[in-house]
Amino acid sequence: MKRVLICAGGPQPAFVKVVREQYDFWIGVDRGALNLVNSDLPLDVAFGDFDSVSSEEFELVQNRARQLFRFNAEKDDTDLQLALMYVVEQFPEVESIHIFGGLSGKGRVDHLIANTWFVHDSRFASVIERIRWIESNHEMCVYLPGVHQIKNELDYRYLSIVSHTPVQQLKIEGAKYVLPATDFDEPRSLISNEFLLEQSIVTLSFEKGIMTVWFVADDH
Amino acid sequence: MKRVLICAGGPQPAFVKVVREQYDFWIGVDRGALNLVNSDLPLDVAFGDFDSVSSEEFELVQNRARQLFRFNAEKDDTDLQLALMYVVEQFPEVESIHIFGGLSGKGRVDHLIANTWFVHDSRFASVIERIRWIESNHEMCVYLPGVHQIKNELDYRYLSIVSHTPVQQLKIEGAKYVLPATDFDEPRSLISNEFLLEQSIVTLSFEKGIMTVWFVADDH
Repeated sequence: MKRVLICAGGPQPAFVKVVREQYDFWIGVDRGALNLVNSDLPLDVAFGDFDSVSSEEFELVQNRARQLFRFNAEKDDTDLQLALMYVVEQFPEVESIHIFGGLSGKGRVDHLIANTWFVHDSRFASVIERIRWIESNHEMCVYLPGVHQIKNELDYRYLSIVSHTPVQQLKIEGAKYVLPATDFDEPRSLISNEFLLEQSIVTLSFEKGIMTVWFVADDH
Repeated sequence: MKRVLICAGGPQPAFVKVVREQYDFWIGVDRGALNLVNSDLPLDVAFGDFDSVSSEEFELVQNRARQLFRFNAEKDDTDLQLALMYVVEQFPEVESIHIFGGLSGKGRVDHLIANTWFVHDSRFASVIERIRWIESNHEMCVYLPGVHQIKNELDYRYLSIVSHTPVQQLKIEGAKYVLPATDFDEPRSLISNEFLLEQSIVTLSFEKGIMTVWFVADDH
């Protein structure tokens, strides 16, 4: 079982949350590979067209990476999609995939949307519930139908629950705003719900659909 | 026919693009109302719980706004949703609605998602194609089925085309990457397409679904 860290090129990698021993395999995506090198963190594989780094910076990445896949910028998939396909193929039994710098809070908003759209990509369906997106002030994870216990491990204040599809029998318990079992015919964003206490657990359940849950800090 | 500007509370209002005579009606949402006052722009109506401004700042807004709706923070809709419902009710024949500071590039990512989810909200269906989201480095607009001519009026480089639903017979012509008529069973993000020339026109057509188009500048 592997615990994989992927560092994407966004400007908020939040490495302050990274404990080196937490991960077995380190992937850098384009400028994210440079971020790993500059933070003196391991770099097993680097992916990208590397048009976002200088030639000196590229050399740094090339010298550090155990393996490097360089792509032409003109391709259908984003570098992050290619990296995630690599994980699916190499580590189908992966335990967890933490993606840093992929919500690109200060970067290109269309990249954020594209990354969020992974929830609809059948190529990632087998690992989608094991992915966690981590930024300085946000975390995001994906839930498929079932009953889920959501714990606030890192003292987030807000909890935004977003359906990406129609959803059946969505129920929220243990949060500031509860929801009795409800069907939604269209995707719906229920934002700015709150954890009741720092360590409290929110129970999210639904019978059909795809949901993301966004953890949001209070400091912005 | 009214041309409405809504300034939301995000940190990138991009007022540099605002010509005062371009708009007939000015709405400020929460901290966005303060942004209008501080930029010496008109403020017809202010909406919000105003928990993001100090009491002195709230007084500034209150003194300037011709009308003010203050809400409790604990409500189902966001302040921006309430403002948009006001527009739908007051100006059903509205010509255009430009929303500044609503993509909140540096702010809360869940707010960005929530605002993008307006495309699924039946209450806004009658005006959704007349809304344009404007930030410093991005613009976003919504397209319903039909043939659409997309012009690059402000020298954007990238053009990202995102379906929020399954889509039938999606065709892209006149861009760097063209797409012959294609069906997609799931929402799909086609990002980082490009305008061929500054003034070139991209033709987007599809028969079923909801699409957003993101214009992205090259400087970040």
